[in-house]
Amino acid sequence: MGSKRLTSALLLFLLVSTGSSASHSNWRKKAREPCKTLVFYFHDIIYNGHNAKNATAAIVGAPSWGNRTILAGQDHFGDLVVFDDPITLDNNLHSTPVGRAQGFYIYDKKDIFTAWLGFSFVFNSTEHKGSINFAGADPLMNKTRDISVIGGTGDFFMSRGVATLMTDAFEGDVYFRLRVDIKLYECW
Amino acid sequence: MGSKRLTSALLLFLLVSTGSSASHSNWRKKAREPCKTLVFYFHDIIYNGHNAKNATAAIVGAPSWGNRTILAGQDHFGDLVVFDDPITLDNNLHSTPVGRAQGFYIYDKKDIFTAWLGFSFVFNSTEHKGSINFAGADPLMNKTRDISVIGGTGDFFMSRGVATLMTDAFEGDVYFRLRVDIKLYECW
Amino acid sequence: MGSKRLTSALLLFLLVSTGSSASHSNWRKKAREPCKTLVFYFHDIIYNGHNAKNATAAIVGAPSWGNRTILAGQDHFGDLVVFDDPITLDNNLHSTPVGRAQGFYIYDKKDIFTAWLGFSFVFNSTEHKGSINFAGADPLMNKTRDISVIGGTGDFFMSRGVATLMTDAFEGDVYFRLRVDIKLYECW
Repeated sequence: MGSKRLTSALLLFLLVSTGSSASHSNWRKKAREPCKTLVFYFHDIIYNGHNAKNATAAIVGAPSWGNRTILAGQDHFGDLVVFDDPITLDNNLHSTPVGRAQGFYIYDKKDIFTAWLGFSFVFNSTEHKGSINFAGADPLMNKTRDISVIGGTGDFFMSRGVATLMTDAFEGDVYFRLRVDIKLYECW
Repeated sequence: MGSKRLTSALLLFLLVSTGSSASHSNWRKKAREPCKTLVFYFHDIIYNGHNAKNATAAIVGAPSWGNRTILAGQDHFGDLVVFDDPITLDNNLHSTPVGRAQGFYIYDKKDIFTAWLGFSFVFNSTEHKGSINFAGADPLMNKTRDISVIGGTGDFFMSRGVATLMTDAFEGDVYFRLRVDIKLYECW
Repeated sequence: MGSKRLTSALLLFLLVSTGSSASHSNWRKKAREPCKTLVFYFHDIIYNGHNAKNATAAIVGAPSWGNRTILAGQDHFGDLVVFDDPITLDNNLHSTPVGRAQGFYIYDKKDIFTAWLGFSFVFNSTEHKGSINFAGADPLMNKTRDISVIGGTGDFFMSRGVATLMTDAFEGDVYFRLRVDIKLYECW
């Protein structure tokens, strides 16, 4: 009798908990511990009319008051830059690249440097195969900025997460190096 | 004996239900009730050669038959616009902004107004900190259009959802105001 | 007594398993079987100065060494193309379109053809209503390339997945046809 009551209580608990988890599963509080963490650097050398050989990026759109060889005034507002940048494991531009960062950024504010990024990390090495896709706002005067990992393929199949960008170095308007701390919270 | 049988049946049920939820969990029918709902307005003033001071957006790409001061013919097909627009809680351009809408849109159809959007809502107030990232098609002659919330950071960490756009007002080719109803279905 | 012990063991198992599934649920190994599979073709005819009537795409950004009528040298590096392409169920350009592929691509590498894509499939037929949003790198000399499905609306509400692109045909720099195998792994 006592054990029957216990079993019934257990059954009730089970049904209630199953029911609640089924209907709310997509918005329950989820653990904020990453399932995968990765750190990379990438290096952007913007074409300025004199560095065609080394340049990894070029201005391809500009506001009517700008041009496509020199970044525009007003914090480069409106400049659209396409890039194919080497990814390295440390902060040395001359380290062997482990992949390419490919995509674009657009400077999108007149009174401070800020950009919007859409790009991928593309890997094809023994370490990593596949791609990680990113999008988000980059208020680049902040020490750290978070953008979204919106998807992935290959080793990073269906990934989602957050990437923290840090400007690791820059030289005038021609070179900058970003450190990217990738934290994936959805892994398949 | 009766309670033993009950317990066994319960155990069986438990194992079966656990197994099935593990293998199908990622494509089971999910609840379509949002875990968070937000409503904002944002205001876009396109640079037209005469409004440099007030403009919040500028044409930075255009087809060969267009230019970067006046939106092109054929429903602006090919015009790429970068923006940094104030976000307000009501439909008044002069209300105190609660954040900035930053990114780009491209008009992408010749026979009707349609655009493709990639942008972020960037918040840094006592109300909200962090960003919401959006992408999708905006067939802007429709009364309502749905785009995707593809990720978020800060208060909107790992968010996913759908945003419904409505054109709340427009004045010629210079000003428009969008109402955005954000419904998040994944919250962390 | 025996049944009580069994019930207790069951209760313990239940609590342990519930606890573990709650904290790790977002990064457990998930099934890689798609919940929905779709195959489409889309057709891109780039404006070249002579085909205004048939063109479905146009160059709207280019590096300083390029122009907006002819794709630039160095593997079109820096060319930004906006498109509104018909989607068909088979590989025939003249089949009745079932939707439109709308968005942009940017050629982003100097020594081989590679692009970055941001676009949507927009449907409004008896078959499908709603949109699927895509982003990712397209190393287009590879036989197959995977990009991400980053969201969806309508019939494709909250979708996520992977799309495999294949170049089904191309004619010089003016026409290409892509086959897209869409596999959704998150369906609502």
